[in-house]
Amino acid sequence: MIQSRDTESIAAELTRQGVESAYALIKSKIKKTPVLTSESISAIATGNDNPPTRLFFKCENFQKGGSFKIRGATHALENLRPEELENGVITHSSGNHAQALAIAARAKGVKAYIVMPSNSARPKVEATRSYGGNVTFSGPTAPEREYVAETIRTKTNAHFIPPYDHPHIILGQGTVLRELISQADVEYGCKLDAVIVPVGGGGLLAGCALAAHGTGVRVFAAEPALADDCFRGIEIGIREPNVTSSTVADGLRTPVGVINFPIIQKYVEKVFTVSDEEILAAMRLVWERIKIVIEPSGAVALAVALSERWKIEGVKGNIGIIFSGGNVDLDKISDLIKMS
Amino acid sequence: MIQSRDTESIAAELTRQGVESAYALIKSKIKKTPVLTSESISAIATGNDNPPTRLFFKCENFQKGGSFKIRGATHALENLRPEELENGVITHSSGNHAQALAIAARAKGVKAYIVMPSNSARPKVEATRSYGGNVTFSGPTAPEREYVAETIRTKTNAHFIPPYDHPHIILGQGTVLRELISQADVEYGCKLDAVIVPVGGGGLLAGCALAAHGTGVRVFAAEPALADDCFRGIEIGIREPNVTSSTVADGLRTPVGVINFPIIQKYVEKVFTVSDEEILAAMRLVWERIKIVIEPSGAVALAVALSERWKIEGVKGNIGIIFSGGNVDLDKISDLIKMS
Repeated sequence: MIQSRDTESIAAELTRQGVESAYALIKSKIKKTPVLTSESISAIATGNDNPPTRLFFKCENFQKGGSFKIRGATHALENLRPEELENGVITHSSGNHAQALAIAARAKGVKAYIVMPSNSARPKVEATRSYGGNVTFSGPTAPEREYVAETIRTKTNAHFIPPYDHPHIILGQGTVLRELISQADVEYGCKLDAVIVPVGGGGLLAGCALAAHGTGVRVFAAEPALADDCFRGIEIGIREPNVTSSTVADGLRTPVGVINFPIIQKYVEKVFTVSDEEILAAMRLVWERIKIVIEPSGAVALAVALSERWKIEGVKGNIGIIFSGGNVDLDKISDLIKMS
Repeated sequence: MIQSRDTESIAAELTRQGVESAYALIKSKIKKTPVLTSESISAIATGNDNPPTRLFFKCENFQKGGSFKIRGATHALENLRPEELENGVITHSSGNHAQALAIAARAKGVKAYIVMPSNSARPKVEATRSYGGNVTFSGPTAPEREYVAETIRTKTNAHFIPPYDHPHIILGQGTVLRELISQADVEYGCKLDAVIVPVGGGGLLAGCALAAHGTGVRVFAAEPALADDCFRGIEIGIREPNVTSSTVADGLRTPVGVINFPIIQKYVEKVFTVSDEEILAAMRLVWERIKIVIEPSGAVALAVALSERWKIEGVKGNIGIIFSGGNVDLDKISDLIKMS
């Protein structure tokens, strides 16, 4: 469903300069989200290490639509010609890309058809509708979503905006790290040594990898062990198209995209997996200590930074942690919090 | 237990200028907490009104120790002579003043003895201990707390720092509004028309009332209906010393102080009460829409702004809302959230 014409002509833009151009295009249409720190959480990450670790939290939970996804969606729409927009846009998404596309489409004054898996978090569905999105449900797996989306696309002739597997999306999401690097410098006078980025479909991860290239910032990925297709794909050197959908990190239940995988292979130093227990403990720590709401998928990078495997890896200094989103179903999360 | 010598000599400082002086003294020792806005919550508060209501949220949940209480505690310690500090300090508190005094005492290098009611939220007890506070438990009512505190004070000769019923505490807490007024001006180019302030013991409310005096900012109070001693006291014109302790807003289960009451009588325009259901619904809205964690006591002012009674009152324009704290017991709050 990806428009191969577009894809080929812009694949050459998949560079740090491409992220920079994307940022110039979307900057005025998104929020510059805050970068927060926490002495107590940095102290936990440091342990007995010297020099101490300092964590910088990029708070995309405060972004429009509650996640980083508005960056890629806005960038994709900014790159469409008027005739490509006239029948509206369509996508499939577990939730955050859905909300983002609905918001971006409303800002452009065009229709948004959104296919959401039937197990999507209720507030994400409600929010997508509240932003004017026309929601249709599908089964929970990627092939099921894609089938329903293709059916609607054929009927409406709406333009398909993929959730992660497209250069425009990747470049848009990469602006998260572009912004974080500059905020660490300007607001804290610090140079990042590394960044840990959650990976689901790999839009955010591939984009951040491009944004980091040539800056000296090392890029690591954080993935739920219960949806570890990226980790396995990197291990065997071939993209792994299958993923289970049982992790609590509902935003990361997708296989890494075709365009995303080779970028990750090339630029990402290592993929770390974390258990659902580690994800929930990290999420709880953020709620209690920083007093902000992040969703399980948004806590995966911190879960890595607090893990034994990360300590063994020995990456020290100023570490960027991407809090990718904050859209939680408070009714369901209550039970999960008690387990943590 | 209040040192009447001190009280008399500084009662004359209970003015806006007194708040200003307190701010100069504590400014470098506290956090300047952010002021946030939310289009969607302001829209709910506005309803069909014209001009629209714009809410400005003063986020003391991000303050050191997770609530505004560090302001009063720091101000109180800054005003003590070395010989008054040498045997340490003591207080009784349901939690937030406890943590605040422990932090302020540690910063001064003195001991802190803290009496906490046995039904205090677990994380508040743990946090108080983690800041070096020496915790003793008492029964849940004010007389029970006071009795245990007096016993320890006699034994240790520690200096008593009351949670709210003291001029130094009142002036310190008033810096919340002092800061909010200036942030609304500098960061948003807005003049506040009114502010809604939670009331428990009345330290924050009396302090904010002094800070507002002469500025044109109208001051309203927000109180849980299940702990409405302030509301009843104002109605009958005499301080009501009795209060039940059943509200979900655990920080507001105290009667208004002796020094606080006449200030509130004189400067606060009206006290609004809200049900526990309204408090929890407001808290949930903040978690979901603003993505920040506030405690039930911290949601009482917003609950008023969203109520029918407030609409009938007809206060419009730029309204300050004090989010007084963010210390929640996530294990317990889960059940409450489900009820909301």
